[in-house]
Amino acid sequence: MSLRMSAKKGEAIELPIVRSIADLRSAIALRRAAGESIGLVPTMGALHEGHLALVRASCSGMDCTVATVLVNPLQFSPDEDFESYPRNEAGDAAMLSEAGADLLYAPAIEEIYPEGFSTKVEVTGLTDVLCGAFRPVHFSGVATVVTKLFLQALPDAAFFGEKDYQQVLVVRRLVRDLDIPIHIEMVPTVREADGLALSSRNAYLTAEERAVAPKLYATLNEMAMAIRKGNAIAETIAIGEAALREAGFRSIDYLDVRDPETLARVEVSGRPARIFAAVHLGKARLIDNLAIPG
Amino acid sequence: MSLRMSAKKGEAIELPIVRSIADLRSAIALRRAAGESIGLVPTMGALHEGHLALVRASCSGMDCTVATVLVNPLQFSPDEDFESYPRNEAGDAAMLSEAGADLLYAPAIEEIYPEGFSTKVEVTGLTDVLCGAFRPVHFSGVATVVTKLFLQALPDAAFFGEKDYQQVLVVRRLVRDLDIPIHIEMVPTVREADGLALSSRNAYLTAEERAVAPKLYATLNEMAMAIRKGNAIAETIAIGEAALREAGFRSIDYLDVRDPETLARVEVSGRPARIFAAVHLGKARLIDNLAIPG
Repeated sequence: MSLRMSAKKGEAIELPIVRSIADLRSAIALRRAAGESIGLVPTMGALHEGHLALVRASCSGMDCTVATVLVNPLQFSPDEDFESYPRNEAGDAAMLSEAGADLLYAPAIEEIYPEGFSTKVEVTGLTDVLCGAFRPVHFSGVATVVTKLFLQALPDAAFFGEKDYQQVLVVRRLVRDLDIPIHIEMVPTVREADGLALSSRNAYLTAEERAVAPKLYATLNEMAMAIRKGNAIAETIAIGEAALREAGFRSIDYLDVRDPETLARVEVSGRPARIFAAVHLGKARLIDNLAIPG
Repeated sequence: MSLRMSAKKGEAIELPIVRSIADLRSAIALRRAAGESIGLVPTMGALHEGHLALVRASCSGMDCTVATVLVNPLQFSPDEDFESYPRNEAGDAAMLSEAGADLLYAPAIEEIYPEGFSTKVEVTGLTDVLCGAFRPVHFSGVATVVTKLFLQALPDAAFFGEKDYQQVLVVRRLVRDLDIPIHIEMVPTVREADGLALSSRNAYLTAEERAVAPKLYATLNEMAMAIRKGNAIAETIAIGEAALREAGFRSIDYLDVRDPETLARVEVSGRPARIFAAVHLGKARLIDNLAIPG
């Protein structure tokens, strides 16, 4: 049980948890009947301040904020970390309650993918590049579960983090393409004091690796400034790759400058662009991205 | 403009036509605000009594019936009849009005698939066999457009014809899998007096071919009776194929006995089963199916 203090009376309030689609819909229907707007914050749990920023963004605009916790097997390849992905529901519930969430939806996997489940949602184009090129089933798994969560809850808005920028584009694309009547909000990346983007997978880092990790963001920042000053993009990427290897990252999946809407490669500076990176460090695969200021 | 007579006063009533998602949603929101239930009848136009049976089924259970007319390019292969598929909106509107529909949604293709559209819905398993094996993009195109129409209109129920039995299973599967809160109703096949299942593609038949066409249903009936009597399924299929060729069908895509839920092949009689056929006759590809009585 997680408790939070009522702003009004200082008494403990329990964060309600629902585990079935039917109970989720009943709880939301009650809120709807009271005229409340609904915000949804889909997560895989192992929550950190980045997730809580999503919850707070929802709370600031919506009457009722529903957070979901589900480690979605569809978005992991067999060689990825589905089994070892960190899980801590009690801790998550306490943090959500503290951040102001009104409801936690934490279904079992069987509730989401019952026997016979055989439908998938796929976004083409946007998912061919960056993480999509290295994690072939990932975005189809994301698109499918997000579509399901949206249609289970039918919120007014859903909140996603800028750290997973490509994911935000994919979700916006599928929402537009499938005519799901939900507004998608992107919330800025939350970082540690040293610049490392918060991620549940940072927990995989040893102390030594943790000291190396912020060099990813530092390198992206240096690249952004170089490109802004007019340095050639291809050369800046080469310098950035060398800096990442020198810093101690085990391997680089990609380090790319791309259009912020289409994710097409940007070859010449002076156009809207974003730097995207995915690197491996110990057991962790870290991603980050940064807008190049115009 | 199509007109129908008001049951009450005998005056002419115009069938409203909307062409944009926004106008569709506004029209439905007004009905919802009045407490009405909404039935959806998705069609590709070129309407016949089979479609009107869907409209009447909707009207009998729902307060408001919305029919859609859209020849969906996604469900045609490049070598199929998308361009030549019959189109007759004025005639369709008159028939819909007469049958009791309250609204016609007839969007342009660009309204449904604007530039940049790149999401697809796919149902696996059920779509590997029968028509799915011969029309590789067909069911993904159906699943995608049906998902979109459902989410555009968000009706309480949607009505589909038994003639497209595999399509009904696919639609039910995706509705269940994506948690779309819509009930799917299957309406019995409407047939000509001689047994030919109504189809927009029957219009492709010459007079001579039209005389041959009813032998498809006659053959399925003979097969169903033979299997019911205990004849071996494999042998009955062989006899049925010979009968179809003898009757003059140009080629047979499939003639199969399958489980009515999973579409798995049924090899032994005495279990719930259905006969499915797809044959070519002149320019037309005809499909039909029949339950084997228990």
